[in-house]
Amino acid sequence: MTRYGAQFGPDITFLGVPAADLDEPATYADADVVIVGAPFDSGTSHRPGTRFGPSSIRGTDYLAHDGSRPHMALRVDALQDLRVVDVGDVEMPPGEIEVAHAALEAAVYAVAQTGAVPLVLGGDHSITRADATGVARHRGFGRVSMIHFDAHADTGDIEFGSLYGHGQPMRRLIESGALRGDRFLQMGLRGYWPGPETLGWMAEQDMRSYEMTEIVKRGLGACLDEAFEIALDDCDAVFLSVDIDVCDPGHAPGTGTPEPGGLSSRELLDAVRRICRELPIAGIDVVEVSPPYDHAEITTYLANRVCLEALSGLAVAKHGITHDPAGPLLEGR
Amino acid sequence: MTRYGAQFGPDITFLGVPAADLDEPATYADADVVIVGAPFDSGTSHRPGTRFGPSSIRGTDYLAHDGSRPHMALRVDALQDLRVVDVGDVEMPPGEIEVAHAALEAAVYAVAQTGAVPLVLGGDHSITRADATGVARHRGFGRVSMIHFDAHADTGDIEFGSLYGHGQPMRRLIESGALRGDRFLQMGLRGYWPGPETLGWMAEQDMRSYEMTEIVKRGLGACLDEAFEIALDDCDAVFLSVDIDVCDPGHAPGTGTPEPGGLSSRELLDAVRRICRELPIAGIDVVEVSPPYDHAEITTYLANRVCLEALSGLAVAKHGITHDPAGPLLEGR
Amino acid sequence: MTRYGAQFGPDITFLGVPAADLDEPATYADADVVIVGAPFDSGTSHRPGTRFGPSSIRGTDYLAHDGSRPHMALRVDALQDLRVVDVGDVEMPPGEIEVAHAALEAAVYAVAQTGAVPLVLGGDHSITRADATGVARHRGFGRVSMIHFDAHADTGDIEFGSLYGHGQPMRRLIESGALRGDRFLQMGLRGYWPGPETLGWMAEQDMRSYEMTEIVKRGLGACLDEAFEIALDDCDAVFLSVDIDVCDPGHAPGTGTPEPGGLSSRELLDAVRRICRELPIAGIDVVEVSPPYDHAEITTYLANRVCLEALSGLAVAKHGITHDPAGPLLEGR
Amino acid sequence: MTRYGAQFGPDITFLGVPAADLDEPATYADADVVIVGAPFDSGTSHRPGTRFGPSSIRGTDYLAHDGSRPHMALRVDALQDLRVVDVGDVEMPPGEIEVAHAALEAAVYAVAQTGAVPLVLGGDHSITRADATGVARHRGFGRVSMIHFDAHADTGDIEFGSLYGHGQPMRRLIESGALRGDRFLQMGLRGYWPGPETLGWMAEQDMRSYEMTEIVKRGLGACLDEAFEIALDDCDAVFLSVDIDVCDPGHAPGTGTPEPGGLSSRELLDAVRRICRELPIAGIDVVEVSPPYDHAEITTYLANRVCLEALSGLAVAKHGITHDPAGPLLEGR
Amino acid sequence: MTRYGAQFGPDITFLGVPAADLDEPATYADADVVIVGAPFDSGTSHRPGTRFGPSSIRGTDYLAHDGSRPHMALRVDALQDLRVVDVGDVEMPPGEIEVAHAALEAAVYAVAQTGAVPLVLGGDHSITRADATGVARHRGFGRVSMIHFDAHADTGDIEFGSLYGHGQPMRRLIESGALRGDRFLQMGLRGYWPGPETLGWMAEQDMRSYEMTEIVKRGLGACLDEAFEIALDDCDAVFLSVDIDVCDPGHAPGTGTPEPGGLSSRELLDAVRRICRELPIAGIDVVEVSPPYDHAEITTYLANRVCLEALSGLAVAKHGITHDPAGPLLEGR
Amino acid sequence: MTRYGAQFGPDITFLGVPAADLDEPATYADADVVIVGAPFDSGTSHRPGTRFGPSSIRGTDYLAHDGSRPHMALRVDALQDLRVVDVGDVEMPPGEIEVAHAALEAAVYAVAQTGAVPLVLGGDHSITRADATGVARHRGFGRVSMIHFDAHADTGDIEFGSLYGHGQPMRRLIESGALRGDRFLQMGLRGYWPGPETLGWMAEQDMRSYEMTEIVKRGLGACLDEAFEIALDDCDAVFLSVDIDVCDPGHAPGTGTPEPGGLSSRELLDAVRRICRELPIAGIDVVEVSPPYDHAEITTYLANRVCLEALSGLAVAKHGITHDPAGPLLEGR
Repeated sequence: MTRYGAQFGPDITFLGVPAADLDEPATYADADVVIVGAPFDSGTSHRPGTRFGPSSIRGTDYLAHDGSRPHMALRVDALQDLRVVDVGDVEMPPGEIEVAHAALEAAVYAVAQTGAVPLVLGGDHSITRADATGVARHRGFGRVSMIHFDAHADTGDIEFGSLYGHGQPMRRLIESGALRGDRFLQMGLRGYWPGPETLGWMAEQDMRSYEMTEIVKRGLGACLDEAFEIALDDCDAVFLSVDIDVCDPGHAPGTGTPEPGGLSSRELLDAVRRICRELPIAGIDVVEVSPPYDHAEITTYLANRVCLEALSGLAVAKHGITHDPAGPLLEGR
Repeated sequence: MTRYGAQFGPDITFLGVPAADLDEPATYADADVVIVGAPFDSGTSHRPGTRFGPSSIRGTDYLAHDGSRPHMALRVDALQDLRVVDVGDVEMPPGEIEVAHAALEAAVYAVAQTGAVPLVLGGDHSITRADATGVARHRGFGRVSMIHFDAHADTGDIEFGSLYGHGQPMRRLIESGALRGDRFLQMGLRGYWPGPETLGWMAEQDMRSYEMTEIVKRGLGACLDEAFEIALDDCDAVFLSVDIDVCDPGHAPGTGTPEPGGLSSRELLDAVRRICRELPIAGIDVVEVSPPYDHAEITTYLANRVCLEALSGLAVAKHGITHDPAGPLLEGR
Repeated sequence: MTRYGAQFGPDITFLGVPAADLDEPATYADADVVIVGAPFDSGTSHRPGTRFGPSSIRGTDYLAHDGSRPHMALRVDALQDLRVVDVGDVEMPPGEIEVAHAALEAAVYAVAQTGAVPLVLGGDHSITRADATGVARHRGFGRVSMIHFDAHADTGDIEFGSLYGHGQPMRRLIESGALRGDRFLQMGLRGYWPGPETLGWMAEQDMRSYEMTEIVKRGLGACLDEAFEIALDDCDAVFLSVDIDVCDPGHAPGTGTPEPGGLSSRELLDAVRRICRELPIAGIDVVEVSPPYDHAEITTYLANRVCLEALSGLAVAKHGITHDPAGPLLEGR
Repeated sequence: MTRYGAQFGPDITFLGVPAADLDEPATYADADVVIVGAPFDSGTSHRPGTRFGPSSIRGTDYLAHDGSRPHMALRVDALQDLRVVDVGDVEMPPGEIEVAHAALEAAVYAVAQTGAVPLVLGGDHSITRADATGVARHRGFGRVSMIHFDAHADTGDIEFGSLYGHGQPMRRLIESGALRGDRFLQMGLRGYWPGPETLGWMAEQDMRSYEMTEIVKRGLGACLDEAFEIALDDCDAVFLSVDIDVCDPGHAPGTGTPEPGGLSSRELLDAVRRICRELPIAGIDVVEVSPPYDHAEITTYLANRVCLEALSGLAVAKHGITHDPAGPLLEGR
Repeated sequence: MTRYGAQFGPDITFLGVPAADLDEPATYADADVVIVGAPFDSGTSHRPGTRFGPSSIRGTDYLAHDGSRPHMALRVDALQDLRVVDVGDVEMPPGEIEVAHAALEAAVYAVAQTGAVPLVLGGDHSITRADATGVARHRGFGRVSMIHFDAHADTGDIEFGSLYGHGQPMRRLIESGALRGDRFLQMGLRGYWPGPETLGWMAEQDMRSYEMTEIVKRGLGACLDEAFEIALDDCDAVFLSVDIDVCDPGHAPGTGTPEPGGLSSRELLDAVRRICRELPIAGIDVVEVSPPYDHAEITTYLANRVCLEALSGLAVAKHGITHDPAGPLLEGR
Repeated sequence: MTRYGAQFGPDITFLGVPAADLDEPATYADADVVIVGAPFDSGTSHRPGTRFGPSSIRGTDYLAHDGSRPHMALRVDALQDLRVVDVGDVEMPPGEIEVAHAALEAAVYAVAQTGAVPLVLGGDHSITRADATGVARHRGFGRVSMIHFDAHADTGDIEFGSLYGHGQPMRRLIESGALRGDRFLQMGLRGYWPGPETLGWMAEQDMRSYEMTEIVKRGLGACLDEAFEIALDDCDAVFLSVDIDVCDPGHAPGTGTPEPGGLSSRELLDAVRRICRELPIAGIDVVEVSPPYDHAEITTYLANRVCLEALSGLAVAKHGITHDPAGPLLEGR
């Protein structure tokens, strides 16, 4: 195996799942999920550090790194009940965003072609342009809807003279046709960006963005119900993109552009679990985890658990469930 | 312009709004809101550091410091739709609290006389004695009610032999007649201070204090409804004083006397927005932000957003609103 | 007095309550509550540091360390209305867990024999094996039910070849007969540990474990109602064990094995207050506070307040209450 | 005993030495050294936090807090061979610098009158105005020379409109006649403050200030030799004032106004040891330790050891020495 | 003025010196030194964060930001005795290194053409390719020698597939002919990079690199003497490039690729002072300051002082000196 | 391979060297150096955290983890020129120090029997009892001398009732006969522990301890010269034990019992290089690295480089050297 390994630091896999090699498709041919590291932070408009996201998300756990994580409530062991492999990082040169994105897109496309779900560990949000395109190239442009958790719409046009930063990927994905604007569901937006012009462009695309004021009033559950219906209308699958800054900075300080007033970690974990359990998932990314700004690893723990809830939801989707996860934990054990 | 600038560190303005000069009233004569820095932490009874509050609140944002902040949900740009200027800091000698308070009171009185709303960036809570008095001198003693977010009542009599620390301003304001005890609304109190004697004094003043147990049981919204009614009864205007420690330490660690069990940042932001949108505001302060105890700037981000929600609420109050902020974000854009 | 004092750092007492000496029973003979430090972190399976828990919990407060804490909402002063003394730490050699546990068990047993409630400040959760056994030896094996707040079930069998780490105390307590499995109430479990085999063992013991999914769906209040009923069925008293990691890492980062998606600090404080007010308490421990991983002391503040809410609840239980704590704070003052 | 104790946090003594009570002179009548806490940081011109200096310096040690510290190289146990007591803190209201200084001066004067050496734990450097005056009142104005370790001359005239901040104490002491300018020895100055006018004033007073360029060229030992000669010329005793920022920020980050390019901690410790061993010491203060800016307690450890080296030097001065401390450690043991 | 200002955060100038505008040459036409911010960290091979270097270096000082810094030992006030202006940051898009470098090179060339010394605040070391080229374009390719303080040689060929990262600038500068290899003086190298092949290339270029083993043995002063001679041989001027990681990580933790065993901050400050005082300086950059990894601002303080020592040295070079800086500080004042 | 891997966190090897399996001697049969992790911190008397030392020392480097580290000054690549393998951690149950030590001793003995040098990554210093015994069992009791860098003598008798903590290993090693007291060389001792009784015991054993006062006076080089002579007198080999707290806390904050006034990192690195180059090394340990107390990884970087300097010295010892490392770096390349 000539696996690239890690761009920064020691070569490890997500919680000890088997390593695979991007250049040897046989090593992940029969995988349900393939983990891909995208250690890139040159798309960020403010605090960097997400280049260390992949290694931190892979390695932050107090439990043994043994490739097994039995979910108490769901009664599945995602890392065992699914075949999950980790191909390591894609090399993404920090100063060359187009080269970096192209490499990631190619990697994700290769994974998607096998039928596996790519689970991409960012990296800043600019990488979604690449990884969602990689999925769309396999599933068909316009055939995949997007559920996007974020404080920010990421639909800007240009920043610092560049088209490809972490504030612009969603615009680029819609412009290219990879994703449909009217199947783009955004959860958790808040704050003072973008301005009216960009929001106008979003409205023209028929995007559906749930700002926190709406979520607080209606409840996240009701918003998700509505979003699920849109997502499944004339699309074959769903891409889930989780920007950790959708959570309140108190729950996720380790990120580049924190915006107060967000979701709690519990809300995010439950939403991700539900999405992956109930919807046909084509790809996932978890982004904007910046370890240099984290404290006591609380943000990287959260991101690791977002991955595990997603994987556990996928395992339930595949194998079914026989027990109500909200019922007594030990009932029928 | 002979503007004093910043007492500590470089001279900047709040998110890039225009600078004005306290000594030249023409520079802020037609302002809607005048930002005043009160970099004073010698009133604190425990952890200091709020002297760096004004510069941190002014300068903490990942967005461009360009004097524009379009609010997605409210569809106003407070920094553009209002005329907001920043006169910099008042020089407040750390070891001389009476001199320091007098200087702040004079500055706030000068601002209030123009009809503008002073938005004072603390500093510890002792400064409210000065800034609320400055407002009351213009509006009339007893004509301004107070809505006060805090974990603590701040109605103590003496601490360390001093009458003027951050645990005593509310008592001094009522004693002087600047504010009426029976139009004093406190939100978010909790914990083990003050003791029965002081609480008895507060009851004698007919203060209305909402402890967290009541808020949890009734809901913050219901408590605010009730408080609004009291605030508007036979008073002309409202002073809003936000002690960041009203939030739970998980949401606002960077403060001097953290008390577990408080509001979430979402709850505070929504309450501040609503108050400034619905009530006639005469003055605002945001206090007890202590950057040395902060992590990843989460407390200074929160305080910056408290200011922006207040300003955005004021902008709505001035210009009106045509869209339900809890409705779909892009509807009618 | 030949009091041992503190194993690590200066000898202080909990917020200035009187010191007592374990070796001189007369010094705590008539106490209502005896505080015992258990500065032990060699049972932890991951991040250490809880050896500094006792001193941090005792000493973290911005208020005067004067042995008085009037509770605003409950209108009791637990440190005055109860006789609370602090015997300092038990010497617990870090590398010798059986010696350490034996010493703690003996100390707690000595305290329990006087009729006082031992309030044990951990230390990691392994100490509960010792302290709950100490209480059970006095109250009778099987006569004390357990309410256990935690992200983890702590019912493992062996870790790192040892039977006595912080993942195993609850199993050991049930195996020894000190506590009954069917009077073991667990609140706040979540995540990916333990696995099916251990959960099966727990089911066999008729434990009742409330995982967060159930708590979110039913509400913590309803779960507690149900738990109280079980706890009081054919048992004489209740042991309350609070692992601070039951809270979300955003509220309690300073702990060894943080698990995202937990309770808020408000929820924990209210639950502890209610338990100690409504149930016959035989012993309490507060564990897994690891200052090296804390920030701005937010976790040690929380733990200190968990103790104060527990003590205030006990004071209400002893002296009664005449005012609704959820009513207006100043009413009838 | 009605001892005031600690102004902030639990009441502890320096490494467990006996407590005494300022108001009961009998409790320290026969002491060699009396430790006094001066928890005051309202004189600082920049980063605060030195109010927590006294408790941190007293309590930071990994060794048992048992009132014994045998010095390996000097073969004395300062805390046993001298009678050292700790009277706790002087209450110093943060916002009232003149009140605060007067209280400290009175306390130090009371101590000095007994013949004991006061060892004052600051606090910011403004306190030296008070404590050195307290010593001079007993020893006689102009009879005590000063050896002053600092990055800064602290001879400013006015800052923020105040005469008494931490940049001015040395000027005030010379102006009042408490200390003679021509017996004022400053070690370690560097940087860009004060300006020519103040330096001119210093020259007029015949102060002798060793800037780091001179110290690097000549060696600290040679500079000290010269300074000792001046200090002992027509003066009866020496006051030693150690501002921890004389050390390089890499060795002492926890301070308010760090200036790169200072002494190493080894150099400072050796110099302090030598001064207290060789000169007739009338008083000592250790100032500008700001725990909020410290990391891993390295600055408070250093300040604690500065105290211990000073005390050990005093013990040698009193009891003599029989072994060369630079000789083999175990020789003749 | 249409000055770009700051790419990240508020627009400030270096310690309050006058602002100028790159696009309006008249604003800096007669300057002695022009400060240019290069907030770029996408060239780094490991820990990022240097994008915040320019704002931190400009704004970190406890003294007033008043455009004046009288140097005690040198008796010059560089910010007054020289005309120093600050043109703010060059916009450098993080993901587009060639665009970013081109913009910086153009800015520095514009500055150099006026005859002023550009003082560039990095940013990672990749920017030296741009800024030294900008200077060389004005002074003539091969006419400027280089004195380069660094733990690393920065002469690599390719990293992550890129030619332009922070490990390669010195190779590119020599390859392009901008600088001569045989006038390239490197001070402070150490560690395990680069390997023999690159060292062989360096030897072929006749570079002169002083590894720490040599510096420790011979003394930094002797090495500098030798280096000065080479630097002045058939070159017109000197470019000084200071990578803050030349200092030991204990003195400069806030950097991306720390290498233990470096210079002390004192050694660096003295060397920079001497170089700027004794050699004809054509340009300066100070790079690799990464605030997210700093503690208590010690690294940004050091970098600020490196700039001030450089500027003070330049002021001495221009105005001469009449007093030995290693003599008594107050002599002749 | 059934390699145990890492007790805490992901399984990695030292900078990417090949993994081996303790249970399969063939995997390390022909190694020159075998790296062994001893993740144990239950011997510490104060701040814990060294359990994370092995993983941090293995994984902290900004360079590629590729099993190659060409040393610029020595012109060897220790990881290539020697056969270095990493057998991962020994499982050391935290609460059972005797079990833990026995496991480590067995592992080190197994390694030593192959003729390889064990390089043990601690862990607290208690592990030296085990690893030095493991080496002595192979080399012969009394046949290996010890060079011990430390702030502390570690010759205590009992602490917290235990014989085996990190303050006692050197006494136990001499008592058992594994090492000779008169071939025990200690470098860097300082401070206030141990007391006269223990120092007397040390003198009786004819130990030679270099306290910092002696080292400062004579120079570290002269002390090492003398120590080398003793070490080689009637012994076959040398064990090198490096407690990172021998360095000043400014250079190594991440440790449990920091003692101000120590060596610089440069001094330690040069001394280790020299020892491993000039003396016959039988075993090495690097201990007391506590990542929770580190900042910006400066202590783990230092420990990693201590290992690399040791390995590079061993490589020179094996292969010889042709170039003076203090000569010009590029000379003869």
